[in-house]
Amino acid sequence: MNRLGIIGVGLLGSSVARAARLHGLAGDISGFDRDADNLATAVSLGVLDRAANTPGEAAAGADLVVLAVPVGAMPSVLSELKPYWAESTLYTDVGSTKQALVETLQAVFGYIPSNFVPGHPIAGAEQSGVAAGRADLFDGKRVILTPCPETSPAATAAITTFWQHLGAIVAPMEPLRHDRILAATSHLPHVLAFVLTDLLGHMDDQDAIFQYAAGGFRDFSRIASSDPTMWRDICVANHARIVPLIDDYCRALLAVRELIAHESASELHDLFSHARSARQRFLNLSQQ
Amino acid sequence: MNRLGIIGVGLLGSSVARAARLHGLAGDISGFDRDADNLATAVSLGVLDRAANTPGEAAAGADLVVLAVPVGAMPSVLSELKPYWAESTLYTDVGSTKQALVETLQAVFGYIPSNFVPGHPIAGAEQSGVAAGRADLFDGKRVILTPCPETSPAATAAITTFWQHLGAIVAPMEPLRHDRILAATSHLPHVLAFVLTDLLGHMDDQDAIFQYAAGGFRDFSRIASSDPTMWRDICVANHARIVPLIDDYCRALLAVRELIAHESASELHDLFSHARSARQRFLNLSQQ
Repeated sequence: MNRLGIIGVGLLGSSVARAARLHGLAGDISGFDRDADNLATAVSLGVLDRAANTPGEAAAGADLVVLAVPVGAMPSVLSELKPYWAESTLYTDVGSTKQALVETLQAVFGYIPSNFVPGHPIAGAEQSGVAAGRADLFDGKRVILTPCPETSPAATAAITTFWQHLGAIVAPMEPLRHDRILAATSHLPHVLAFVLTDLLGHMDDQDAIFQYAAGGFRDFSRIASSDPTMWRDICVANHARIVPLIDDYCRALLAVRELIAHESASELHDLFSHARSARQRFLNLSQQ
Repeated sequence: MNRLGIIGVGLLGSSVARAARLHGLAGDISGFDRDADNLATAVSLGVLDRAANTPGEAAAGADLVVLAVPVGAMPSVLSELKPYWAESTLYTDVGSTKQALVETLQAVFGYIPSNFVPGHPIAGAEQSGVAAGRADLFDGKRVILTPCPETSPAATAAITTFWQHLGAIVAPMEPLRHDRILAATSHLPHVLAFVLTDLLGHMDDQDAIFQYAAGGFRDFSRIASSDPTMWRDICVANHARIVPLIDDYCRALLAVRELIAHESASELHDLFSHARSARQRFLNLSQQ
């Protein structure tokens, strides 16, 4: 890779650019962002070599184009890129939902372009914007690629190598399985944290409530500081997986409500013990 | 203070002992723990000078007795202490619920002892046991005291000074207001995290689910690693405040479910923005 195009220079796009430059994967980085101030900052910080006026201009002549826009912007960005689509260019994205992207590709192109490899780095932070990007954001993190039957194996192999050079651990997955897994581990927890924080923010006595909240609430609610546009788009794009999970969650929560209301001490102890064991399994697996 | 008695040498009891010794507030520390191994460890680590065979023995001759047992153990521990109750001794506790404690004092003694100052340090960690204690656990943390009309103002003043010497910021509060506030900022989030982690721990494909969970889930679920006995007792003791909050939460979550199901993008954006602003208010207040 020599010429890199970045469409959307937020936390992730900026981090891809910084990491690619650090690891010598990009001699020339062109970028586009809908937010002109953010785009100008990207150039002044040296994250980008050039600011493009359109997505097509950022992609022109690139060896690799990374789409790092909120997933709701994918249809319009892909439509803008379509007239300039180049067989010699590789395309990938960093979106948190994958089935909707595959459907968008089909809708925009009428087929799945063989040189677009859908991807999702499991890395992020509650900060946003170009300045929040970090060259080491993907170091040791997992990246899921969800190639379709139509995707060129050579394209998938090249994108795999690209992420590995950025320090990531790359694994392939079916788009729908990706969306189901991420709905459970990421989308549902974000919704739960947004709802709790919003609920507390509407309570009487909320100054005292926030004043006496401790580290547990700080950690629990961290993801409620995430970008509202990004999460609006994820909820819309993956609603078919998130809604049934919310229903499962509500059922489980109401069952616990009954245990608490009836002071069912031993059942509560069992449930909290199971939860604690499950989290220990998560810690063990995430350290592998 | 010279002689300190600690009933329950877990994370909090151990931290009180370590901090009191560090700050020169205790020349002699006696302690009791139902778990004989934990009690022996407390002596071998030097957290305690002496292991007592009963709560009464740990309290005998102490200037200050700190009860640091799960709130469900309060009735039995207070009943055991009652025959040895000394007017010259100050008593306090570190329990996470306060109204139930006041009711237990009334039930055990037939009145509220004037030398018992109910308290709650807003500090903790998901670890438990004597070894997890830290002398700096209360440094800069808030401690809520909930004295009753019957509580001696001199006792409240002495306990306030004790916690201030340990680095804490002390504030008084009505017991019921304490329980309402903590239900919102601590008890409800713990229940939500336990339920989510337990739900994920029962899913098919859970190895992949935990393997691809990221930092957001790690932070969100940290409190689900908390001690099941402690949280069973808190849920039972404060059920009257927690259950209506769970109902409020379910209503709010189901409203968001509808927004997601109907892909109501702008309403979702508004809600996530409000939540993000609320968390920023929390961050601002918690840094004061």
